[in-house]
Amino acid sequence: MLELITDPEKLHPVPGIRLGVANANIKYTGRDDLVLMALPDNAQVAAVFTQNAFCAAPVMVAKKHLAHSQVRCLLVNAGNANAGTGQRGIDDALLSCQCAAEQVACSTEQVLPFSTGVIGEYLPMENVQKGIVAAANTLQVDGWQKAAQAILTTDTRAKVASVQVDVGGTVITVTGMSKGAGMMKPDMATLLAYVATDVNVDPDVLKHCLNNAVRSSFNRITVDGDTSTNDSCVLIASGESALPKIDNIDSSAYYILSQAVAAVCEHLAKAIIRDAEGATKFITINVLQGSNEQECEAVAYTVGQSPLVKTALFASDPNWGRLIMAIGRAGVPGLDTRGVGVSINNVVIVRNGVRAEDYTEAKGQEAMRGKDIVIDISLARGEAQVTVWTCDFSYDYVKINAEYRT
Amino acid sequence: MLELITDPEKLHPVPGIRLGVANANIKYTGRDDLVLMALPDNAQVAAVFTQNAFCAAPVMVAKKHLAHSQVRCLLVNAGNANAGTGQRGIDDALLSCQCAAEQVACSTEQVLPFSTGVIGEYLPMENVQKGIVAAANTLQVDGWQKAAQAILTTDTRAKVASVQVDVGGTVITVTGMSKGAGMMKPDMATLLAYVATDVNVDPDVLKHCLNNAVRSSFNRITVDGDTSTNDSCVLIASGESALPKIDNIDSSAYYILSQAVAAVCEHLAKAIIRDAEGATKFITINVLQGSNEQECEAVAYTVGQSPLVKTALFASDPNWGRLIMAIGRAGVPGLDTRGVGVSINNVVIVRNGVRAEDYTEAKGQEAMRGKDIVIDISLARGEAQVTVWTCDFSYDYVKINAEYRT
Repeated sequence: MLELITDPEKLHPVPGIRLGVANANIKYTGRDDLVLMALPDNAQVAAVFTQNAFCAAPVMVAKKHLAHSQVRCLLVNAGNANAGTGQRGIDDALLSCQCAAEQVACSTEQVLPFSTGVIGEYLPMENVQKGIVAAANTLQVDGWQKAAQAILTTDTRAKVASVQVDVGGTVITVTGMSKGAGMMKPDMATLLAYVATDVNVDPDVLKHCLNNAVRSSFNRITVDGDTSTNDSCVLIASGESALPKIDNIDSSAYYILSQAVAAVCEHLAKAIIRDAEGATKFITINVLQGSNEQECEAVAYTVGQSPLVKTALFASDPNWGRLIMAIGRAGVPGLDTRGVGVSINNVVIVRNGVRAEDYTEAKGQEAMRGKDIVIDISLARGEAQVTVWTCDFSYDYVKINAEYRT
Repeated sequence: MLELITDPEKLHPVPGIRLGVANANIKYTGRDDLVLMALPDNAQVAAVFTQNAFCAAPVMVAKKHLAHSQVRCLLVNAGNANAGTGQRGIDDALLSCQCAAEQVACSTEQVLPFSTGVIGEYLPMENVQKGIVAAANTLQVDGWQKAAQAILTTDTRAKVASVQVDVGGTVITVTGMSKGAGMMKPDMATLLAYVATDVNVDPDVLKHCLNNAVRSSFNRITVDGDTSTNDSCVLIASGESALPKIDNIDSSAYYILSQAVAAVCEHLAKAIIRDAEGATKFITINVLQGSNEQECEAVAYTVGQSPLVKTALFASDPNWGRLIMAIGRAGVPGLDTRGVGVSINNVVIVRNGVRAEDYTEAKGQEAMRGKDIVIDISLARGEAQVTVWTCDFSYDYVKINAEYRT
């Protein structure tokens, strides 16, 4: 069992990775809103990005830079997504990269830009440029805590995780941070997440490690089913560790690293749900005994995104009729409902497609009372299973999103 | 242009169709909650039902009866969906049919049962049986208004439409009613809708007429994306009109009838949205210039069901960033966002994928002020178009659905 550290004040720094922050007054005043991450020459970077067709200017630029250059710097701003901004948005992202490159002595193409915040407004470039210079002056390996705060938007708290593991006598480090609270149904990526290790890792192996971790973490959460224009998740290997380079996914060193990265990503993803806009409950949906992962995922997301299920969860109402409604509309081909079972926090509510004989409303209400709800859904038609994490749907979700721009 | 009557007190009765109501105390006290419709011997019936795999017991029974018998009676109750009730639910539905059959002198198989309300509870059969007897005593051709009230659940008002048209000198009638306010994203059918005409129509032609009307009405609305277990839409042709039997979809008589049925269905569908749970605005989403209807529909529903778009609409906030986010995540293959245009109530907000140069926040706020919002989205890649009707997402939606069972 990995000992994850999730207290922002106790994170392990990642040798070689320096982080700096600044208040650039992009949208927020009186708090940091810009982050610079400087990487050593040896570093390798893998990243996944949103599948939204309206992807933001920084996403387009970051994809291109990542494909053609050795990345030496990451630049993140909160408060403005630089999305839906056309050519000017791309020009702004490139200018930001150029400015950051001057600060860390690399080329413009070696900088990956990231933005999160309001869609459809241009970046205040003068503020951004000043912020970059200021952030460069604070670069330090112990910068994770401040950086994790600076990338937040509607989030109420920083989301971090850090772990050290022994690989054949060498202790390696994996540390990460994420942000996100709404517009949250990542599709091959998540809002913003940065995970770094000090291990020297072959680029293809690093990509494999990231995809594996994202698949069971950021790609398994949903708040409202809405996929952001700016989702990005980055895994950095600084290469500063004494551990020999990992260049083979069949090695035991890779196995240990990938377990550590996956654990950090899972914590960061779940932390997003725990801090979701207006959420009062953390919901784990396990779909079991499906024919394949795809149908399990369809059921899990249909249940997890159903406004009627989510409002019932908010009310702590064991309204299992809505659960079977959602299961039934998930499009599972030829589903025999007579095999379906549903439990909430181990209270069996539905057995063989109908209300369990020993179920009582009192038991259901008891099971729904807590803040952590586990819903197990069995399709009784195979061996596949999928877990998705989500939250309830409250007055505050409506309030936060009705008032966001005002 | 058809002159639709939508005042419940002024509906045209449909010769041959008699409706009766009763307060059966199924869930509601002090109001009618059970409807009986008696059809003449000549009547033909077409129906479409929910695609939800967990379809309710009455849906299963109604499908079977419709396939094998000449329908003579429809039985509807509000307050209990008789869904998720297994074999006992089916037995209850059959017993209800038997009781209704005794009242109108037909066989059990000639009765179609319908239920709407809470999922997962058994019907109080004694009350249902007493209600059927009481409703049979009130059967009358002028019963539409009371019936339209009796089928409601969380609806705040009756939804009706009626029209008379001249077909070569013979005036024919089409009258209908619907209910539904939440759990509303019909899939090949809608919650409950009953439309009747006095024309004598061949069964296959009647089915064609219903499918045509449903396609552009009940299958083009969404409140929350949740598809009910009980959706049903029925078209009845009593055959009492002097008009010769319509047995050909190429005839001008069919054209006129199908336009009238489509107009009634469109009104009934839009009335559901106008009365949707917690809704404060009526939203029309036109997706234009798509490659095919499928992708237009995907964009329209993704926009119309996005919680972030819906909360922005509630706030009268022209947050077009959320609109392009939703367009971008709709899965349109190879969408070139540089061609996308978005207007709200004729104010052009997005042109060629970016904010229109002449757009101002003041214009956007002005456009969003009203209760009726038309969003035009152009994909600039073809000739196909689709219209979907939806509503905003308010505190009251959460309130209504958090408190529904309490």
